[in-house]
Amino acid sequence: MPLIDVQAERCSPDIVLPSYEDVSAPTDAVGVRPLLPVVGANLRVPLVTGQETTYANLDYAASAPCLEEVAAHLTEVLPYYASVHRGAGYASQVSTSLYENARAQVAAFVGARADDVVVFTRNTTDALNLLAHCVPTDGAGERAGDVLFLDIEHHANLLPWQRGRHRYVVAGTTQRATLVALRAELAARPAALLAITGASNVTGEVLPLTEIVALAHEAGARVVLDAAQLAPHRRIDLAATGVDYVAFSGHKVYAPLGSGVLVGRRDWLDEAPAYLPGGGAVREVTLTGTTWASAPQRHEGGTPNVLGAAALARACLVLADLPEGALEEHEEALRNRLASRLDALAGVRLHQIWRDSPSAIGVVAFTVEGYEPGFVAAYLSAEHGIGVRDGKFCAHPLLSRLGAQAGTLRASVGVGTTLSDVDRLADAVERLLSVGPRWEYARVEGRWSPVGDPRTAPAWAGASLGSAGGASPCESGTIR
Amino acid sequence: MPLIDVQAERCSPDIVLPSYEDVSAPTDAVGVRPLLPVVGANLRVPLVTGQETTYANLDYAASAPCLEEVAAHLTEVLPYYASVHRGAGYASQVSTSLYENARAQVAAFVGARADDVVVFTRNTTDALNLLAHCVPTDGAGERAGDVLFLDIEHHANLLPWQRGRHRYVVAGTTQRATLVALRAELAARPAALLAITGASNVTGEVLPLTEIVALAHEAGARVVLDAAQLAPHRRIDLAATGVDYVAFSGHKVYAPLGSGVLVGRRDWLDEAPAYLPGGGAVREVTLTGTTWASAPQRHEGGTPNVLGAAALARACLVLADLPEGALEEHEEALRNRLASRLDALAGVRLHQIWRDSPSAIGVVAFTVEGYEPGFVAAYLSAEHGIGVRDGKFCAHPLLSRLGAQAGTLRASVGVGTTLSDVDRLADAVERLLSVGPRWEYARVEGRWSPVGDPRTAPAWAGASLGSAGGASPCESGTIR
Repeated sequence: MPLIDVQAERCSPDIVLPSYEDVSAPTDAVGVRPLLPVVGANLRVPLVTGQETTYANLDYAASAPCLEEVAAHLTEVLPYYASVHRGAGYASQVSTSLYENARAQVAAFVGARADDVVVFTRNTTDALNLLAHCVPTDGAGERAGDVLFLDIEHHANLLPWQRGRHRYVVAGTTQRATLVALRAELAARPAALLAITGASNVTGEVLPLTEIVALAHEAGARVVLDAAQLAPHRRIDLAATGVDYVAFSGHKVYAPLGSGVLVGRRDWLDEAPAYLPGGGAVREVTLTGTTWASAPQRHEGGTPNVLGAAALARACLVLADLPEGALEEHEEALRNRLASRLDALAGVRLHQIWRDSPSAIGVVAFTVEGYEPGFVAAYLSAEHGIGVRDGKFCAHPLLSRLGAQAGTLRASVGVGTTLSDVDRLADAVERLLSVGPRWEYARVEGRWSPVGDPRTAPAWAGASLGSAGGASPCESGTIR
Repeated sequence: MPLIDVQAERCSPDIVLPSYEDVSAPTDAVGVRPLLPVVGANLRVPLVTGQETTYANLDYAASAPCLEEVAAHLTEVLPYYASVHRGAGYASQVSTSLYENARAQVAAFVGARADDVVVFTRNTTDALNLLAHCVPTDGAGERAGDVLFLDIEHHANLLPWQRGRHRYVVAGTTQRATLVALRAELAARPAALLAITGASNVTGEVLPLTEIVALAHEAGARVVLDAAQLAPHRRIDLAATGVDYVAFSGHKVYAPLGSGVLVGRRDWLDEAPAYLPGGGAVREVTLTGTTWASAPQRHEGGTPNVLGAAALARACLVLADLPEGALEEHEEALRNRLASRLDALAGVRLHQIWRDSPSAIGVVAFTVEGYEPGFVAAYLSAEHGIGVRDGKFCAHPLLSRLGAQAGTLRASVGVGTTLSDVDRLADAVERLLSVGPRWEYARVEGRWSPVGDPRTAPAWAGASLGSAGGASPCESGTIR
């Protein structure tokens, strides 16, 4: 482990940071400029060396920045914010229209069928828990059929299903073999629902959705698409693909205002008990009995997140308005550059699940020989102002599968990312491998951080950086 | 019912709307000016007559407007928005500090004990459902003890409890008699938890918290305070009052960004199954088993609503920073004026639950003789640009108790309200009683609205006003 004492070098005046302003490519080339403006694109952040740089956000796959257009929309609607579904006041009526209109916009974004229901939730996890709650049960409250999933899923698409009848299929080393295994399992024993991710949150690999839907439907199972990673990158079309339900999150589609969504077939949603009992979810209440409303209200107890829903819907509109293919082209240029530059470095290993994946979204998982992922992430942040993630990405079983029990690094891109950001990451990793770090790092409570980190957070964030937060337990990058 | 045809009068040029700019009171008198600036304070809204006026928001009790300081805080933090608990990037670390610091700020706002836990939820309904999920169970999954509540509660504090062992106490006609009934019920059969509102969402009446906590604890029951209505108006102090849990919502404390909170004792929260299974809620996951994290992470699966939590915490800071007594003085001046002016009108009836309530927050429930509440609310909006609520306020049993099965009107005030707003409401009701409406109204799908309403919503809200929304089923003001 590179616990190199670089005290002597730390304040050396002859270290010149590379300049990232010099982009030699023509300015109209794909990836040179952001595809869409995002809030915080020019954020200046401190380095451990005392200098400052523009933040390179390569962690879109966890939480993407807010689109400028979404932020402007919030400013526009906030003066009208008032109670929805209630009150005859003009602002209440406008807020109600805004909220219900958001459902229609999200439905259009995912190509929903006319009778599909749009339920706003807090995030993908919440949306999948809602659906888990709605899978039909037998008389005794047990699920009437199994929920089936692959062993490559992240926790949001594992844990909600584990509370009832479920089983999983071990993915093959190719997508082809995985489909064969899925088909065999579905044929062997029927399932009520197949829960499948649209794109891996660890490797970015895209799954063959149309074929998966076909084999599930053939076996009488419905399909829920966990589109947390797919929705920001690819168009989704429920009607065209036959997918029965889709779930995704606002914070990954550039609208980080606490909203997510479940869209899909009405029957299960109308028949299940209320997911969040409370005001707004009922028709009539007495002290001994309740008549529940239909979906979506049935599952949206209490005052909904109007602004979160409006933000999510606006982001959908903006993404849908991009010229055909522009998003894919932008992200492919960035991903290809990132993957090829990292792959060219001796000591860097890229990870993927399947040998035959036809495509991937803008996510690259990698490890650097001789350095723990958490060390590299701390180094990238402290010395280069680059944000990536490290750890197990809430996908422990998958990381075990990849032979990366200690986790990996993950760099991910989106509409605000440029080739310059990607090059900074590759340059920084290259420098780590050739020169080593310029600062000393140590593990504190399982997490790598610079020794005597002089960086502070803004006062409004409590001044103390990161450590105040306590990393989420499954995300700490510790090795188990 | 006043289905008066006022076509002839509709466009009469000699109708002069009263001017609300002339405030005769000295400008430093309590209630003349807003106590705090809120977004949308000067919102101009259309009237059915074609004119325009400044919106008088008298529906704070449902959803309060956003504090300007909260909106400014959002603008300040948004460039730093990134994944929390994850990633070593500077923005991620700042966002993590912001989020975890918000817990500490909310804890301080409610006077939490050192070992209390702060769990961010979507709203009060969600927070109470979370606690309902955490009430200890016997081996068979049944609650080990009853949850006890009064029959005056709103749905958020009724429905979550009805899923397990529960019973209710019929409130007396005085608070004194209600306490006697509560004590008798607790003595007769033990309860695990007493769920009590801090202030009625219908009448604003405040409950004697200290005495209620004493008699619950004496009987070995814990107390959860539904502070959805209390938190925006009165200081809460868990440590001083002995209240075990408190729940409230961001959208009622001027931070309408989709967040709510449950604060209270750790043991039940640590022992209960995860409320929202997903990433971030676990320590270790395999395909066959999971080790869950402790609270609060245990119950916050998926990416949390960082900005919602930050907004809620900032609102808490702003409210706590008001000079001692200023909030109570402001709201009391407004409530007294509203109640006394309405009470002076022959044909207006004010509603309250108890004859001996010592105080009330800024909420007034009333009915107007000869007019359905929904008609009056539509008239106030259409002809006067005033927003109030009508209906049953998600408290059907209470409305039955009050002899107001058809619902009531509810006017509610807050930090952005002025005496001028309150006077506009009283003037408008007075005018209705003396002159009648100037427009024709009809019930459409159970809701009163102006016939041929020429008002439209802004284009971003879908242009169609209100009706596009479909009122929430329990809130439609229909008579059952």
